Amino acid sequence: MASTGTGPVVSTGVLSPEELRGIDLYWRAANYLSVGQIYLLGNPLLREPLAPAQIKPRLLGHWGTTPGLNLVHAHLNHQIRRRDTDVMWIVGPGHGGPAAVATAWLDGTYTETYPSVTRDADGMAALFRRFSFPGGVPSHVAPETPGSIHEGGELGYALSHAFGAAFDNPGLVVAAVVGDGEAETGPLAGSWQSGRFLDPARDGAVLPILHLNGYKIAGPTVLARIPEADLLAQMRGHGYEPRVVSGDDPAAVHQEMAAALGACLDGLDAIQARARAGEEVADARWPMIVMRTPKGWTGPGSVDGDQVEGTWRSHQVPLTGVRDDPGHLRLLREWLEGYRPDELFDADGVPRPETVAVVPRPERRISANPRANGGLLLRDLVLPDIRDHAVEVAAPGTATSEATRVLGGYLRDVVAANPDNFRIMGPDETRSNRLGAVFEATDRAWSTGRLPTDRELAPDGRVMEVLSEHLCQGWLEGYLLTGRHGLFNSYEAFAHIVDSMLNQHAKWLKVSRGLPWRRPVASLNYLLSSHVWRQDHNGFSHQDPGFIDHVVNKKPEIVRVYLPPDANTLLSVTDHCLRSRDYVNVVVAGKQPGLDYLPMDEAVAHCARGAGIWEWAGTDGGADPDVVLACAGDVPTLEALAAADLLRRHLPDLRVRLVNVVDLMRLTNEGEHPHGMSDRQYDALFTPDKPVVFAFHGYPWLVHRLTYRRTGHANLHVRGYKEEGTTTTPFDMVMLNDLDRFHLVMDVIDRVPGLGVRAAGLRQRMLDERLRCRAHTREHGEDAPDIRDWTWER
Amino acid sequence: MASTGTGPVVSTGVLSPEELRGIDLYWRAANYLSVGQIYLLGNPLLREPLAPAQIKPRLLGHWGTTPGLNLVHAHLNHQIRRRDTDVMWIVGPGHGGPAAVATAWLDGTYTETYPSVTRDADGMAALFRRFSFPGGVPSHVAPETPGSIHEGGELGYALSHAFGAAFDNPGLVVAAVVGDGEAETGPLAGSWQSGRFLDPARDGAVLPILHLNGYKIAGPTVLARIPEADLLAQMRGHGYEPRVVSGDDPAAVHQEMAAALGACLDGLDAIQARARAGEEVADARWPMIVMRTPKGWTGPGSVDGDQVEGTWRSHQVPLTGVRDDPGHLRLLREWLEGYRPDELFDADGVPRPETVAVVPRPERRISANPRANGGLLLRDLVLPDIRDHAVEVAAPGTATSEATRVLGGYLRDVVAANPDNFRIMGPDETRSNRLGAVFEATDRAWSTGRLPTDRELAPDGRVMEVLSEHLCQGWLEGYLLTGRHGLFNSYEAFAHIVDSMLNQHAKWLKVSRGLPWRRPVASLNYLLSSHVWRQDHNGFSHQDPGFIDHVVNKKPEIVRVYLPPDANTLLSVTDHCLRSRDYVNVVVAGKQPGLDYLPMDEAVAHCARGAGIWEWAGTDGGADPDVVLACAGDVPTLEALAAADLLRRHLPDLRVRLVNVVDLMRLTNEGEHPHGMSDRQYDALFTPDKPVVFAFHGYPWLVHRLTYRRTGHANLHVRGYKEEGTTTTPFDMVMLNDLDRFHLVMDVIDRVPGLGVRAAGLRQRMLDERLRCRAHTREHGEDAPDIRDWTWER
Repeated sequence: MASTGTGPVVSTGVLSPEELRGIDLYWRAANYLSVGQIYLLGNPLLREPLAPAQIKPRLLGHWGTTPGLNLVHAHLNHQIRRRDTDVMWIVGPGHGGPAAVATAWLDGTYTETYPSVTRDADGMAALFRRFSFPGGVPSHVAPETPGSIHEGGELGYALSHAFGAAFDNPGLVVAAVVGDGEAETGPLAGSWQSGRFLDPARDGAVLPILHLNGYKIAGPTVLARIPEADLLAQMRGHGYEPRVVSGDDPAAVHQEMAAALGACLDGLDAIQARARAGEEVADARWPMIVMRTPKGWTGPGSVDGDQVEGTWRSHQVPLTGVRDDPGHLRLLREWLEGYRPDELFDADGVPRPETVAVVPRPERRISANPRANGGLLLRDLVLPDIRDHAVEVAAPGTATSEATRVLGGYLRDVVAANPDNFRIMGPDETRSNRLGAVFEATDRAWSTGRLPTDRELAPDGRVMEVLSEHLCQGWLEGYLLTGRHGLFNSYEAFAHIVDSMLNQHAKWLKVSRGLPWRRPVASLNYLLSSHVWRQDHNGFSHQDPGFIDHVVNKKPEIVRVYLPPDANTLLSVTDHCLRSRDYVNVVVAGKQPGLDYLPMDEAVAHCARGAGIWEWAGTDGGADPDVVLACAGDVPTLEALAAADLLRRHLPDLRVRLVNVVDLMRLTNEGEHPHGMSDRQYDALFTPDKPVVFAFHGYPWLVHRLTYRRTGHANLHVRGYKEEGTTTTPFDMVMLNDLDRFHLVMDVIDRVPGLGVRAAGLRQRMLDERLRCRAHTREHGEDAPDIRDWTWER
Repeated sequence: MASTGTGPVVSTGVLSPEELRGIDLYWRAANYLSVGQIYLLGNPLLREPLAPAQIKPRLLGHWGTTPGLNLVHAHLNHQIRRRDTDVMWIVGPGHGGPAAVATAWLDGTYTETYPSVTRDADGMAALFRRFSFPGGVPSHVAPETPGSIHEGGELGYALSHAFGAAFDNPGLVVAAVVGDGEAETGPLAGSWQSGRFLDPARDGAVLPILHLNGYKIAGPTVLARIPEADLLAQMRGHGYEPRVVSGDDPAAVHQEMAAALGACLDGLDAIQARARAGEEVADARWPMIVMRTPKGWTGPGSVDGDQVEGTWRSHQVPLTGVRDDPGHLRLLREWLEGYRPDELFDADGVPRPETVAVVPRPERRISANPRANGGLLLRDLVLPDIRDHAVEVAAPGTATSEATRVLGGYLRDVVAANPDNFRIMGPDETRSNRLGAVFEATDRAWSTGRLPTDRELAPDGRVMEVLSEHLCQGWLEGYLLTGRHGLFNSYEAFAHIVDSMLNQHAKWLKVSRGLPWRRPVASLNYLLSSHVWRQDHNGFSHQDPGFIDHVVNKKPEIVRVYLPPDANTLLSVTDHCLRSRDYVNVVVAGKQPGLDYLPMDEAVAHCARGAGIWEWAGTDGGADPDVVLACAGDVPTLEALAAADLLRRHLPDLRVRLVNVVDLMRLTNEGEHPHGMSDRQYDALFTPDKPVVFAFHGYPWLVHRLTYRRTGHANLHVRGYKEEGTTTTPFDMVMLNDLDRFHLVMDVIDRVPGLGVRAAGLRQRMLDERLRCRAHTREHGEDAPDIRDWTWER
């Protein structure tokens, strides 16, 4: 077994003997508390012989990364005390939950957050018991952990979360511990470039601490094994000036770490000072630390003949047979006693003053940083009146707008009114998605080389464009969770790139909502444009409307999906989303010219209802239709309206009702989602017994999945994207998927009882129209003119 | 406008005047053909005045990256001719579809693949017309493009595909063009480390060509704007020795590029020679090229007063008003004529011999490389007999196995029998997923530093572990599409990380199946273990069974989902998947000890049926049940069997049928999926009118989505994961989601008509049992002993 702490205290570096001792006591205490969490059900201070019954029956947790995290925490404390810096930390190796819990308990935050877990022997016992125990707290860093905005589950987002937290927080230093396992992920590898988007004048600083403990679960890590010169070259190439702290002798490492951390904080202060004095600081050399210490440091050196400390074998629980194997039990006791708990805690189990001498003043404690509970600091957005941006709609379906272009004007005003509180993220698609008006109010954030020919680039731009959905999402999550607002605009198909990140954020929100001390944060708002039906330049690879399928699998109280059919409804929905809290809102809207249907007042009312009958488009006079034409999404709404128009002209006696759905979750039952409607409401819209032909933006089965309990479900026939597409014209795309107006008319004819014979001629004509359109498109490369220029005929 | 080609041919470098002229002619021809594809409907050789009607009505495509790609292709040809190297290319900037199509037509491959597109003026006209035109070919590099394994849609995977292609292809050089937009993505950033996993002795080589044209859609790129020293440091840090080729004068760039490419190929030959002579070459310095040339090079210099060439404005179509604006039309004509088409093509439109003098011998043409149509080279796997790995099952539910551990023995034999044709990819979870037996036959691939304490690491290991799902997936896709086999094992929840990659691969397969010349490739096989129900160490962040929801949105002919309930069924299913072609197979299986139910013969028969009645577990005597207990997945099967056991003991008169589903797509209608069953078959299993209580592995609505058309759907009640979880015990997890045996019994009682009063006592007892189990777990941190040790009682 390696030393579990310093031997005789000798100071040969920047730390005085007293400082060294203080840091080491804190570190040892945190390590002791970490081991206790993994193993002990009772006897927390080892004041009686350790009995098997005091060992947890299921040993769950991750020791390997924990002592390194504790070391970082101890040293951050030391620097905060010295400099009174405002520091939060991101625990990339979030499996090391014991470290975040132990340090929060040591500095008092844990007890303030959970008063039943007192800061004494009883509280220590409760702390140990609740860790990774049914009814307790997770084994990872989680929403339950004070001081965290970063779930310790899926790896890859530590740095992007850290940068998101730092944006527009000029006084903040975010210490981001990156594990060498996580560093192998793509998203983390792509996050190093974040410094090129950070404004040293207006933003805070991120201090990456790359912790090389050498191993993942079962094998070595790449960055720990490549030549160190390669590693340092990578970091320098990303714009960092790395300092290496390396060793396994605690006293020596403490001195090295203190020197490195102090120098790094000096370094970033210097960069900020230059920038804040007005100097343009592009490509700043941001300081960072490479910390190379053993995995499972201070844990059992070897067990049953195998080396454990310093290898992958210490990843989870180094001693697994403790309940049954007296040898393991003895090793555990020796391990714990090696930290000399009586030196660390007094007779009552309270940390001795010298153990916590390194803890900063209460407001500066890392675990108590209010930015890690961003709702505490959340200010409402100043929002412009959507009516000022409304398009005039003299009559439905007679004029066109590009919905996202209209929204761009609104967002420009949001940006202008909230200069330090709102950012727009996107993978270089802000203009492509026709939100370009925002560049009248701001620029793209850019802190590296510029050319005279450039447009709309500045270090303090509010639009963040990088061709990485992962980075956009990670930055935005970090920004939101520290109490700010934002919008992520993306091509619809490529939102799937962040499916898994969305999962983790939704899980974070779900758990946070159950914790009274976590205050609500701004919702994560997605604007998905360049959607499946209008991928004119790109084709099949860019056609996937399934992100909303993914989203609705999350907990219903978290997720909202909106499919506004035109510009005014898009404005209304976006305004609503920007005011909401603790949700994931997904808005899908087209950027191509599309018909306007609703004046703003009607748009607001329609969006508030979420779904409604468009009486002006139907022929049922408000009651007792023969068939319901339903639609959700801009292109399906166009096709459904065109189908209604055809039916009005060719089958004037047929009573057609048109229902438009904006808020997709309205389709669910009221008990299943907060927006769900009662069966009575549903039947009032869709009827319990009449055929419903539903033109849907996405995969058709999503509508079935949301409505399968409805009385009339057997009469529901949904058209949507069925994974047919290529580079072709807009109308050919809907034809390929049988979502076109002609096919919808055929669907109606096939489904209304008794209509078959009477409408046989019309059905044939619809088939002929499809053939005509297909032939025209194949020959001329464009939609048939009467399709392209169609407007609503009433 | 910049020069569209070299002026007077002056050789001041490695190329002779004749070589320089040959390369330049080919490049100009490819550029000419690229512009023609974007713009022209007729008049392909400009032998008459260019009329607006000869311009495509919708100008779709991406010019910006195209001339750079054409340049790379020309120079690769030159080197292939000189050295007879076996080269394939990966077009990372796959939006530059015109380049891949143009070069394939120039070298004759296109006409061999599509005989109607002849290599003359008529064929040229057909080539132009079909590009990005309805009924034609996509605007991106796509399956339709000869010589490609890489869809030009979603960005990030060029390098991982390239490495996948290079593995076990010792004679192959994969030239991977990486765009500077793509280089910002996380997955691409994480791909540079692939060299640390490449064996110079047994694998081929990848030559990255990082093309900095400076811009994405609307803004600059990071790597083009950071100091060049930073860029080179990054590349060196990743283990590459970069050579910079930079300029906008074609003749000078040709000389530089020829010198750099020649030196790179020499360099990689030298590394391979050392390794193949037996030297251990860890951390080889692989050559690469940084190519800095203008975006939209040789296109219009400026349009309407704005600089276009060399800026983001040339990203898609530099001249957009050609049909309506005579000035634009004139610019287009000047642009095209600048390539001097009469020098390039003869009177019939056939490329002149000197234009294609640089093309290699037919078998060496890049676009004709058979590895880019991997099915041509595919060899069947040599598969062991699953019976040799079967577990004995004397009676159902009496003994336990760890299913994936049993599978590990089988996979060990697969690895041993297919030493150059099969790889296992996974994010460091092979042992964690209990497939560790494979390490008896092989090691982890590892070509960087090793320590004496390491285990199971070697340059030629068949197991590829990197903590990047993106890299695992990208490598495997590249490996499969070049005609080999593999398996991706991952934690279930984190399969979502590659949702979007799965989309693109499924789309590739769907389109490929429609192209007779593309031969079937081995299926992409996922083994998802460490699943939602057994995340003992990790908890909520690791609980998400939704990958299968995502997969079933893909085209039905492509996707298969299997939920084997025990070890023998897992063997049978895996054996089937490894023999299949052109599918995405997802297998979900637990790694924890679980009961064995079926002897191997029965397992094979059950898997072949995909779903079946387990008569031995039911009480309906094979006919006319009162209720059906259905199940899919290992943990749900355990709970359903336990529920059946409780019902047998406590309600012996109740006729219970137990149905187990292995092949999830069996639930769909026969018209919707090749594995779907007829309504008659479905009703024979599930009855048309009796209550069905379905215990499901994933989100419950997935079962509803698959069965909503069934007669008995209204009687179907599904239990599954409803997003409730934390770090707790296995039985507490199923209780949290109401999937436990006691709740299933309650569900049966609540749904069988007339059972309520008779079974009220049992129902209460079930509730009490749940409370007892919850209390035991909260107190002791473990499942109640009678739950934990439950075995089947018949």
